Amino acid sequence: MTNMALGKANSSKAPEKHKVAVLGCTGIVGQQFIRMLDGHPFFETAALCSSRKSAGKKYRDAADWAISGRLPAAVENMEITEPEPDALARHGVGIVFSALPSETALNLERRMVKDGFFVFSNAGAHRMNASTPIVIPEVNPEHMSLAGIQASRGGGFIVTNSNCTTAGLVMALKPLMPFGLQSITVTTYQALSGAGRNGIAALSIVDNVVPFIRNEEEKMERETKKILGSLERDRIREAPVEINASCCRVPTRDGHLESVVVELKDDAGCEDVSRAFHGFSGLPQQLDLPSAPHKPVIVSGREDRPQPLLDRDAGFPDRVKGMAVTVGRIRKKGEKINFFLLVHNTIRGAAGTCILNAEMAVKTNLIQQSL
Amino acid sequence: MTNMALGKANSSKAPEKHKVAVLGCTGIVGQQFIRMLDGHPFFETAALCSSRKSAGKKYRDAADWAISGRLPAAVENMEITEPEPDALARHGVGIVFSALPSETALNLERRMVKDGFFVFSNAGAHRMNASTPIVIPEVNPEHMSLAGIQASRGGGFIVTNSNCTTAGLVMALKPLMPFGLQSITVTTYQALSGAGRNGIAALSIVDNVVPFIRNEEEKMERETKKILGSLERDRIREAPVEINASCCRVPTRDGHLESVVVELKDDAGCEDVSRAFHGFSGLPQQLDLPSAPHKPVIVSGREDRPQPLLDRDAGFPDRVKGMAVTVGRIRKKGEKINFFLLVHNTIRGAAGTCILNAEMAVKTNLIQQSL
Amino acid sequence: MTNMALGKANSSKAPEKHKVAVLGCTGIVGQQFIRMLDGHPFFETAALCSSRKSAGKKYRDAADWAISGRLPAAVENMEITEPEPDALARHGVGIVFSALPSETALNLERRMVKDGFFVFSNAGAHRMNASTPIVIPEVNPEHMSLAGIQASRGGGFIVTNSNCTTAGLVMALKPLMPFGLQSITVTTYQALSGAGRNGIAALSIVDNVVPFIRNEEEKMERETKKILGSLERDRIREAPVEINASCCRVPTRDGHLESVVVELKDDAGCEDVSRAFHGFSGLPQQLDLPSAPHKPVIVSGREDRPQPLLDRDAGFPDRVKGMAVTVGRIRKKGEKINFFLLVHNTIRGAAGTCILNAEMAVKTNLIQQSL
Amino acid sequence: MTNMALGKANSSKAPEKHKVAVLGCTGIVGQQFIRMLDGHPFFETAALCSSRKSAGKKYRDAADWAISGRLPAAVENMEITEPEPDALARHGVGIVFSALPSETALNLERRMVKDGFFVFSNAGAHRMNASTPIVIPEVNPEHMSLAGIQASRGGGFIVTNSNCTTAGLVMALKPLMPFGLQSITVTTYQALSGAGRNGIAALSIVDNVVPFIRNEEEKMERETKKILGSLERDRIREAPVEINASCCRVPTRDGHLESVVVELKDDAGCEDVSRAFHGFSGLPQQLDLPSAPHKPVIVSGREDRPQPLLDRDAGFPDRVKGMAVTVGRIRKKGEKINFFLLVHNTIRGAAGTCILNAEMAVKTNLIQQSL
Repeated sequence: MTNMALGKANSSKAPEKHKVAVLGCTGIVGQQFIRMLDGHPFFETAALCSSRKSAGKKYRDAADWAISGRLPAAVENMEITEPEPDALARHGVGIVFSALPSETALNLERRMVKDGFFVFSNAGAHRMNASTPIVIPEVNPEHMSLAGIQASRGGGFIVTNSNCTTAGLVMALKPLMPFGLQSITVTTYQALSGAGRNGIAALSIVDNVVPFIRNEEEKMERETKKILGSLERDRIREAPVEINASCCRVPTRDGHLESVVVELKDDAGCEDVSRAFHGFSGLPQQLDLPSAPHKPVIVSGREDRPQPLLDRDAGFPDRVKGMAVTVGRIRKKGEKINFFLLVHNTIRGAAGTCILNAEMAVKTNLIQQSL
Repeated sequence: MTNMALGKANSSKAPEKHKVAVLGCTGIVGQQFIRMLDGHPFFETAALCSSRKSAGKKYRDAADWAISGRLPAAVENMEITEPEPDALARHGVGIVFSALPSETALNLERRMVKDGFFVFSNAGAHRMNASTPIVIPEVNPEHMSLAGIQASRGGGFIVTNSNCTTAGLVMALKPLMPFGLQSITVTTYQALSGAGRNGIAALSIVDNVVPFIRNEEEKMERETKKILGSLERDRIREAPVEINASCCRVPTRDGHLESVVVELKDDAGCEDVSRAFHGFSGLPQQLDLPSAPHKPVIVSGREDRPQPLLDRDAGFPDRVKGMAVTVGRIRKKGEKINFFLLVHNTIRGAAGTCILNAEMAVKTNLIQQSL
Repeated sequence: MTNMALGKANSSKAPEKHKVAVLGCTGIVGQQFIRMLDGHPFFETAALCSSRKSAGKKYRDAADWAISGRLPAAVENMEITEPEPDALARHGVGIVFSALPSETALNLERRMVKDGFFVFSNAGAHRMNASTPIVIPEVNPEHMSLAGIQASRGGGFIVTNSNCTTAGLVMALKPLMPFGLQSITVTTYQALSGAGRNGIAALSIVDNVVPFIRNEEEKMERETKKILGSLERDRIREAPVEINASCCRVPTRDGHLESVVVELKDDAGCEDVSRAFHGFSGLPQQLDLPSAPHKPVIVSGREDRPQPLLDRDAGFPDRVKGMAVTVGRIRKKGEKINFFLLVHNTIRGAAGTCILNAEMAVKTNLIQQSL
Repeated sequence: MTNMALGKANSSKAPEKHKVAVLGCTGIVGQQFIRMLDGHPFFETAALCSSRKSAGKKYRDAADWAISGRLPAAVENMEITEPEPDALARHGVGIVFSALPSETALNLERRMVKDGFFVFSNAGAHRMNASTPIVIPEVNPEHMSLAGIQASRGGGFIVTNSNCTTAGLVMALKPLMPFGLQSITVTTYQALSGAGRNGIAALSIVDNVVPFIRNEEEKMERETKKILGSLERDRIREAPVEINASCCRVPTRDGHLESVVVELKDDAGCEDVSRAFHGFSGLPQQLDLPSAPHKPVIVSGREDRPQPLLDRDAGFPDRVKGMAVTVGRIRKKGEKINFFLLVHNTIRGAAGTCILNAEMAVKTNLIQQSL
């Protein structure tokens, strides 16, 4: 871990790209990492890691490419390895993107941090650790400083992004914070890809809806409070909002739709809320990060939108499609504001935000390229 | 209209069956009427009415039979007629089941009432009239007295049943009334059949969810308040509950799933609520009406139920399948109770409740067979 | 195995029911066995067997009931056991219905036969053995005599039914044999349930068709030739027909559709073929077996039928629904006859035919109840 | 119609783009035209025409954009007009792309030709006219000369492309002609978009397959013979091949899968056939036309491909995705060769080939830009 340094000024000469590894490279989120890292201005995919079953195979043989867009030529023939910290270090890898299942992530990511890697993880394993931030860069970039604190203790750090449904939700809640967000009732219509390649049997879901996703409601409730929480020195104090989540699986391929009802302290009308969504922008937009969409939240004017099929790829320009959240059907009912939101679960809800976190870490000099 | 009488005692000898007509007989709800009326102990299908397009054809040729169960042999060759009150009266028809579209229902049903017919209508046209009740027999049988008041002015009456989503909702809310129901947030996953045979184009919904069903949220909100309202002489006073509905179409064939969050005045726990559901029973069960399920609300013990595919045909015994509402996943979150419910939209949510209303009217002597 | 005897005359007094076991009772085909055996006039379900994982559990807890119709009350609380021949014999079981996976079936069924059981198997393991018949009772009941030959060597016997697609195909080909069947090109649209509960991941098939089902085309080709073959003493001589099969999975839940093109020696027209289908009947109809549909092949007159959704439950009366094959769109093109057929894959294509075979064995005294 | 000329040499200076109109611009094929014409090197979309209902509206308001890729900014605010030849001429339009329904196309296209327009039509109305060619540029570019003959009689011409299923089929058959193609049995799995936006009701096809598409089998049979036919002066002599087509609708969004069985005169093996597919190339590739894929037929090496979901966008480079046909599962059975093919029905099967025809007409100087 000698090729990285924290907190130093950027070298004046054009920095080389950071070498990165993708852990859990064959699954859907792993594939999104690979797609979004292809030709990335900051990062170069130097290693693809997976379990023993795939190790030793060429990527194109081990992974049934199953997402939109072509399998990048640069990785087609790359050999998959098991995630060995020493070997990764020898290859010059300093940054690790993790699409591991939680059970595997728990120990492996911890070991990676100890060995000095900067781990950006989509896994749930460490999200609720006090010292680990869950960062959605447009929403709570300041929580990233917990990563600096981790690193200051020696070694690297873990930065997680949230559960996929939460990512979409907090993107829409953040612009409403100024109105005094009190409570949230959220009900989801979640896509198949959220459960992984073989997560849902066709006979379970064709002509059906399943009103249960294990631990999902709990995750939404606690992660939302943490992300919207305030940073107090080295701790995050949970946001004092009430969250009530109900989660269902529906037979769509990609894109989680969420029906949201919020109580606001201020008497905000639909126009106010719409303007707040429309005007929302964050640090990624300010820093012009490569994976930042010009508008992180898009307000649809159609009466029957957002829809998974039509809005999951929202995000301008084209290379960041899937990074914008679309909201629509803003309605005031009594004191409450209702709306729907749509988030691409494996892009903004997973790989995309994870990469955006790493871009922010680089651009803010939390991670530096050594000479 | 001489073969019917209101309020007189039943004849002592075995009454003949009441002759009924089905208006709008070729659509999905029309087909459910025909299926449920086949071999009915009270009613005999004497006329099948539809628009000019189908009139003159044999039923089996005009209607593509599209629901579970066989096309009853008794109506296969019945000729479809246009809905002419005089002709219906000549055939001895006194009771009319209407599955008409609202636009057609508006005038035709009114004329039918004037001509002395007892109209049980699934159409939305007259639901919100002050003198027309919306009746779900397990929930508000006392509202049926408005029908008597209508008839006492000369002519027949209209009794409506609610919108399909509302039917399921009020069946689950009624048992919670003793706990002091304050507010309801309901989010729906509605099946394709709710929009009729050709209501939704496949390209609009395969791999998609559409978060908009025209007027549905408004209907749920106002019909629920009316049904749960109290009868004050010849008027219904809306129930003072707050209702917030969000409605979506999903690609299931039949069965509306609803996620419900309720605020109760009393501090009821999940056990209390579950017991209330389980113990719920109404006048149809007391009167042992032919279309009444033994248990109108079934509490599922599985963690991932109710599901449209598995629970839409709930209802015991078999001849009333689709007449029971299934609830599950009862959870307490803060002060609120969350649960899911599943209602078969074209049976309990349409034809089935409409027939149950007529059965109740017969059994309570609101409609009598003349000698 | 003392309570069974081959070839003796039936006792004069009302015979007790034959006690049967269902192996592989939790899967979809296992569930169909249980449904069809409920209240069966010949058979009584005395044992439900499954793998170690489910053994010891009550049936209702081990099996997620996933087929149409209710879980029969009689088996709800029956305890699942591992398939131990000795224990089964102690329970008086003489007949075994097997819905085992082929790997498990291979040895277990062989052992069962050695121990004297009469095994009716839906598994593919033994189908192509020279001494084991594949019987579709309407098509080749005479092949059942191979079972007698097996039993005459001591022990019981195995009778298999065919692969699900083949079952539908041969039902439609048999009536065409008199026209001099020369060659068959068959292309399939196979339902999800054909692959078992978890056989197909939703992401593989929603908005997709998969043009490959491992070994399916080979099975169709060789099983069809065997079933249509002629019995020559203790051997079956394959039918000299050319068969060309192409098999695809489509996202329907149940019901395999097959497009069939046949070459006939005789110059038969559509009318001839239609009449042959319509007039087709076999031994099960003659013997009035409990699971025999009145008409084994139904000719649909509609231009757009058969369809999986509408025709999979064909079969009269209701208790044998799914046992009839529906054909339609009979067209002559040049010298060839084209048509479509639809077979319920887990009923006529699996459990139903298996039970029909056992019924035939009982009714023809191949299996006798001892006193 | 003064700005076009037939048969003259290209001007030496950089030609302006040809102004084109899209008729039937709001449907799915119309949208594909607009997408593929955006930034086209030869053509400039100067007019968008539709029926009275949409005329006068901005394109983005009249057309619910429903295909992959964004609505091009250049046409978003373009006003839709009714297809008036005079007005089009005034705008300098000389080339017309037609995505009209056949009934409308019949007279309107004829009138357009009379008025001197060069009509490239996806409509079926004129395909079987003796003087109108059906051209798939890789397959029968020589038939385009019929267009020249039409124009030589004064006025413009009509060139049609084939029905969508036929387009895929002939692309795969052409490479097999050298082996002596005798007969073809083709069975299809056709996507929803082939029937247009509202062509198929969801309730007709979710959990279903419909084995009937009106006139489709007839179209495949006669169009295939015409396209593969030989040009004899001003006439096409049908190819002497026997074609037997069976067509079904399945619930996929885009991409027609076809199972093909061919009889070849020569004794070709799978390797020969595979090589023929792989090596296939035509005039569009030779001329390097903007919409020509580098490889028009892609041979998939996977055992379970082609699949609609994974292969419909085949075609390299990215701007021509959907223009390549994918074949796979090449198998020899007896004397016959079996394979599957996949064609994007609204791109290669419709708009894409139509544009490719126009590109070929320009590049071969059949259409010239006047000065």
